[in-house]
Amino acid sequence: MKKILILGAGRSAAALIDYLSQVGQQNGWQIKVVDAAVEIIQLYESRYDNVQASQLNVLDATAREALVKETDLVISMLPARFHIHVAESCLKLNRHLLTASYVDDDVQQLAPKVKEQGLIFLYECGLDPGIDHMSAMQIIDKIRRQNGHVTSFQSFCGGLMAPGSDDNPWRYKFTWNPRNVVLAGKGGTAQYIYHGIYKNIPHHQLFKRLTMVEIPDYGDFESYPNRDSLKYKELYGLHQAATILRGTLRRPGFCSAWHAFVQLGLTDDSYQVRNVENMTYAEFTRSYLPYSKDDLLTNFSRYIGVDISSEVMQRIKWLGILDEKPIGLKKATPAQVMQQLLENKWTAKPTDRDMIVMQHQIEYQVHDELRKLTSSLVTIGKISNLSGMAKTVGYPLGIVAKLILQNKISQRGLMIPVHQEIYEPVLQELSHMNIAFVEQEESLTPVPVD
Amino acid sequence: MKKILILGAGRSAAALIDYLSQVGQQNGWQIKVVDAAVEIIQLYESRYDNVQASQLNVLDATAREALVKETDLVISMLPARFHIHVAESCLKLNRHLLTASYVDDDVQQLAPKVKEQGLIFLYECGLDPGIDHMSAMQIIDKIRRQNGHVTSFQSFCGGLMAPGSDDNPWRYKFTWNPRNVVLAGKGGTAQYIYHGIYKNIPHHQLFKRLTMVEIPDYGDFESYPNRDSLKYKELYGLHQAATILRGTLRRPGFCSAWHAFVQLGLTDDSYQVRNVENMTYAEFTRSYLPYSKDDLLTNFSRYIGVDISSEVMQRIKWLGILDEKPIGLKKATPAQVMQQLLENKWTAKPTDRDMIVMQHQIEYQVHDELRKLTSSLVTIGKISNLSGMAKTVGYPLGIVAKLILQNKISQRGLMIPVHQEIYEPVLQELSHMNIAFVEQEESLTPVPVD
Repeated sequence: MKKILILGAGRSAAALIDYLSQVGQQNGWQIKVVDAAVEIIQLYESRYDNVQASQLNVLDATAREALVKETDLVISMLPARFHIHVAESCLKLNRHLLTASYVDDDVQQLAPKVKEQGLIFLYECGLDPGIDHMSAMQIIDKIRRQNGHVTSFQSFCGGLMAPGSDDNPWRYKFTWNPRNVVLAGKGGTAQYIYHGIYKNIPHHQLFKRLTMVEIPDYGDFESYPNRDSLKYKELYGLHQAATILRGTLRRPGFCSAWHAFVQLGLTDDSYQVRNVENMTYAEFTRSYLPYSKDDLLTNFSRYIGVDISSEVMQRIKWLGILDEKPIGLKKATPAQVMQQLLENKWTAKPTDRDMIVMQHQIEYQVHDELRKLTSSLVTIGKISNLSGMAKTVGYPLGIVAKLILQNKISQRGLMIPVHQEIYEPVLQELSHMNIAFVEQEESLTPVPVD
Repeated sequence: MKKILILGAGRSAAALIDYLSQVGQQNGWQIKVVDAAVEIIQLYESRYDNVQASQLNVLDATAREALVKETDLVISMLPARFHIHVAESCLKLNRHLLTASYVDDDVQQLAPKVKEQGLIFLYECGLDPGIDHMSAMQIIDKIRRQNGHVTSFQSFCGGLMAPGSDDNPWRYKFTWNPRNVVLAGKGGTAQYIYHGIYKNIPHHQLFKRLTMVEIPDYGDFESYPNRDSLKYKELYGLHQAATILRGTLRRPGFCSAWHAFVQLGLTDDSYQVRNVENMTYAEFTRSYLPYSKDDLLTNFSRYIGVDISSEVMQRIKWLGILDEKPIGLKKATPAQVMQQLLENKWTAKPTDRDMIVMQHQIEYQVHDELRKLTSSLVTIGKISNLSGMAKTVGYPLGIVAKLILQNKISQRGLMIPVHQEIYEPVLQELSHMNIAFVEQEESLTPVPVD
């Protein structure tokens, strides 16, 4: 009887556990879920026959290794900083490891040993990173098999609210770590290449450097550039592409309103706000505006250069950031003040449905023809149970776990899911679960000169 | 025979050495100047009878201590990072120490011992910091002696070109470390208090949060906020001031053009520009702008929201940043590209004259009257010899050195020149050297409500 160990039973583990429990029943596999929080794992134990739960402090090496030893395969859903400990235990005890997190320098150093021991360490196998790699590489490899080459690669992804649940002026609610949303773009200058020109976008300009994206049946979205588009040149072998851009999707209008906060400095996380415990939101906001005897709404809108009745100001007002209401934090950075405010406003209701949206726009040349392929994915789920986010992060991991236990993956070493033997069966099974891309193709002739 | 040791003989040491040489001749004092660069110090030795020069690597503790031991007083004109080594030697060998640099955490830790040993470690005794402390405290102490209190403190300083030498569209040339000018404001959010409201200005907004400053006979200037205004509340005891703002002066128009560079991200120093060795300035600039088929001037001016013929664009064009001219650097951050460009454009000619400008605007209440005192300083010097910068940095240090050797300073310990027994004689002697403040006073009645 094969055993799978899942470390970390947070929200996005729900779909993974659900899937593996079902697959496990068909194959006679046991699933063990461990987490620091007992309440969550007990829930899974009571819900599924072949799921066992137990508590673990993952930093306790002895306990961790005992668990890894008695399993065939480990899936880590822990926060990224814990992965390296898990990876080291897997290496020591010769176990495969799957995760949805990015390959980092720490695990990169283990890569030769992973290969030597004949193990699979598959990273970046969730949604983004994960389904993005798989679906992009499926298209790119197909173009290559036709002796074509990619001239332009743009890829967009966002975790949003489904139509009907996007019922606030921002058309946005949190389905992901709120802190990451507040600090979006803070990691450094966004870099991409566009029509052959390297582009560098500092954080404070990020939310005005937008691309419009249309998703069939779901309407318009806007996208701001991700930080790291250039690395996909190597990852996907896009050496002839004059454009490589990856971006994050929001509903139109979100970014221009968020841009106002970034402009003012409200998303700064580098210093404590003076006297925050005695401040109202209005006073906090005033700290970032020039002195004026005019009212706050007038002063704010004038400073960011929009009308007081504009949609931007309506979004800003709706958040309560102009209200004379106490912040109620003893100590906070500007970003922490914003996060608390947003957590109260951008909370999804249990009845809400979330929506994952992804689109690749790939231009390529085959013989003398320039073509454009637009491949779009929309996945909707319930916030209360199997959200779109949980399904798109969890199912790819679950499917690959199954493939490995069935000995269907031949590749060994530290890798990401850009290999055909991985992405083909995963994408195929996902499409049967209604997580499917819709493709549109058009001819771009005559070939444009730029 | 008393001996003074001057460490570091860079440009701003010229006036100090000149002054001490003269004072030394009257008092029979010897001056020793040491530097890592031989050429500079030999120049001083040949010019002045009582100045000896020798080479020193200041990190060589044995050589450093030998020099400190045979002197009565040490003046460090070295870059700030070396001061702590000098301070430790002075403490070990019981010598007074003067410098124009800021008190930092390292020397703060030595403060109790400095006092215990009856030494004077006087920091921040140049121009800014230095003359700013002295002249501000002279005014503030005078107000206190009248039983008044300061309600608003604003202080501005800039190192600029004198009229006639400000002959480029920016009316600016380097008289100070170019790197510091390019990175101005990068140190963190600027914080000040204005009409009772704490203000936080992120770097990317700094150059549009301007104050206009008028200097009698010299016209208009603009000022952007310094990073650290709030610390002057404690330093100067400004506990009843609803406004505390310190700023850096430029000629009008400088900041709005510089703001464009900051907006684009051209002053970023955190990453290497890709492919910089093959780039022209125009290509570099294009990396920071949205893609457009329009020409660079049109695209640039549209992005920053000004007309192509505006003064902002004329300043930007004049720098050559829109030219198809090779950058010629193998490796550079955006800030380094900018620095090289500016060093070629903002170079002072030997015949140029520089200009130090300082103004305090202090509002205060005495009995029931609200008054405003405006105190302005303009000092002009020759770039080739005794610049305004060198005089205003060097003379205060030289005067205090004289006062100490004449036993006219009673205070002991680590300090900055906010004490009357220091600032009175220094400011008086400076005024005889034509470095004098002009005061204007007016009554602000009725007392405004905010």
